[in-house]
Amino acid sequence: MAAQSTQPRFIILYHPRIPGRAEYVRLALEAAGEPYIDLANESKSGAREVYSRIDQNSTGDEDGNPPQFAPPMLKIQGAGKNGKALVISQTANILLYLGSELGLAGEDDVDKFHVNQLALTVFDFTNEIHDSHHPLASNLYYEDQKEEALKKAKNFREIRLPKYLGFFERVLKSNAERGHGKYMVGSKLTYADTSAWQVIDGLRFAFPQELKVREKDYPLIFTNFYPGIKEEKGIKEYLASGRRIPYSNGVFRYYPELDRQ
Amino acid sequence: MAAQSTQPRFIILYHPRIPGRAEYVRLALEAAGEPYIDLANESKSGAREVYSRIDQNSTGDEDGNPPQFAPPMLKIQGAGKNGKALVISQTANILLYLGSELGLAGEDDVDKFHVNQLALTVFDFTNEIHDSHHPLASNLYYEDQKEEALKKAKNFREIRLPKYLGFFERVLKSNAERGHGKYMVGSKLTYADTSAWQVIDGLRFAFPQELKVREKDYPLIFTNFYPGIKEEKGIKEYLASGRRIPYSNGVFRYYPELDRQ
Repeated sequence: MAAQSTQPRFIILYHPRIPGRAEYVRLALEAAGEPYIDLANESKSGAREVYSRIDQNSTGDEDGNPPQFAPPMLKIQGAGKNGKALVISQTANILLYLGSELGLAGEDDVDKFHVNQLALTVFDFTNEIHDSHHPLASNLYYEDQKEEALKKAKNFREIRLPKYLGFFERVLKSNAERGHGKYMVGSKLTYADTSAWQVIDGLRFAFPQELKVREKDYPLIFTNFYPGIKEEKGIKEYLASGRRIPYSNGVFRYYPELDRQ
Repeated sequence: MAAQSTQPRFIILYHPRIPGRAEYVRLALEAAGEPYIDLANESKSGAREVYSRIDQNSTGDEDGNPPQFAPPMLKIQGAGKNGKALVISQTANILLYLGSELGLAGEDDVDKFHVNQLALTVFDFTNEIHDSHHPLASNLYYEDQKEEALKKAKNFREIRLPKYLGFFERVLKSNAERGHGKYMVGSKLTYADTSAWQVIDGLRFAFPQELKVREKDYPLIFTNFYPGIKEEKGIKEYLASGRRIPYSNGVFRYYPELDRQ
């Protein structure tokens, strides 16, 4: 489906072979049934384009796009200055763009800013999950910071995890009249939902024992929201398609010793 | 000036007595000469309103705004549903809102997304600066994670700091034709500039020895950009006004042992 269409407008630029932060972008595109190319997963030259854009000597491209700090990036054909390609980065920024284009940003401007703040909170949560296995340095191996990771992950499981999950539970509750415990903002799917769904799915992979104990404390998230979003058109097809890349050594990692014992 | 106008539209909700992440919001408002109230710095009941909105039992307010995860927040009179107050959070989201309202988001939609991605990168940088003194847990004292902070700060100074500064230097270079090394995007001030200026100013407070050695490697940042933004109308007046809250124990902290020895 998605990857087979000719000349899709949207091209994802990300590391090959891991879901990572690009998965938030993929889910929005898949929820909207929008075709896209996932460049580094299609060819070696695709991966080269990704890395050339974040190269420490890059001063931008010939289409007038600035250098980029890190992937994910999104290239949108024809959307840049003078009809050239636009290239944007930062997961939240990409979703802000796609949210408007794909009808996933809520019903009005008020919703739009509430959707954006929720997505940003999901990405803060994501950073903390990453740092639970890499508390000292993202350029060092896990094994070289394992002792610190044991401390960081304990704090994450005991303090931060319930703080974030409690927050999203209350967001669902505050929107129950419009969203019925299934949508975070308004009465239909937004990229706040697809992003929160992804971080919860990643957590269940990374901290299965911890989640098993805690899920009952957040009934809207785990009885309505998480299974409900899974059944949304687009998402359901994607999860059944075999296109979704399995978790491995990206943001979401499973180290049994970091999980609840 | 700013704080003396009657009934300003914009109300900052943040911790009292620290610049913190709200400083990014203040700088945008000050650059535009826009009046605002800084609620928790005006009264004790102001601080109570800030904390009630992020209380772990909050399910939102009577104006239909959802619960918020953390400050800074911005309240905008009359901008919510049915003419009620809108309350939004997440620094990048607040600046996205203010950027459009105050003419600080660039010249067109392409600029808008490039400004937003730069601001998001500034806030990632800010998080890493925070974590250099709090690598294990934000709810524990520095003294209880000092050993880990020494390792984290070393990695920050040697790897992350030059990566971020090198990136912003190249952004200025890539936009030199329009921005003359003074503006990151286009030919006039945006919130990418005010935000990058603030993180660099905070760095100079937190890591003075490290910066002293490194500044010469980034001539556009330290010869054009940093002193240039300081002279912008609005910013210049703010810095001279005495309204700016001094650094202390917020995101930007000075611990000599974490700096270059």
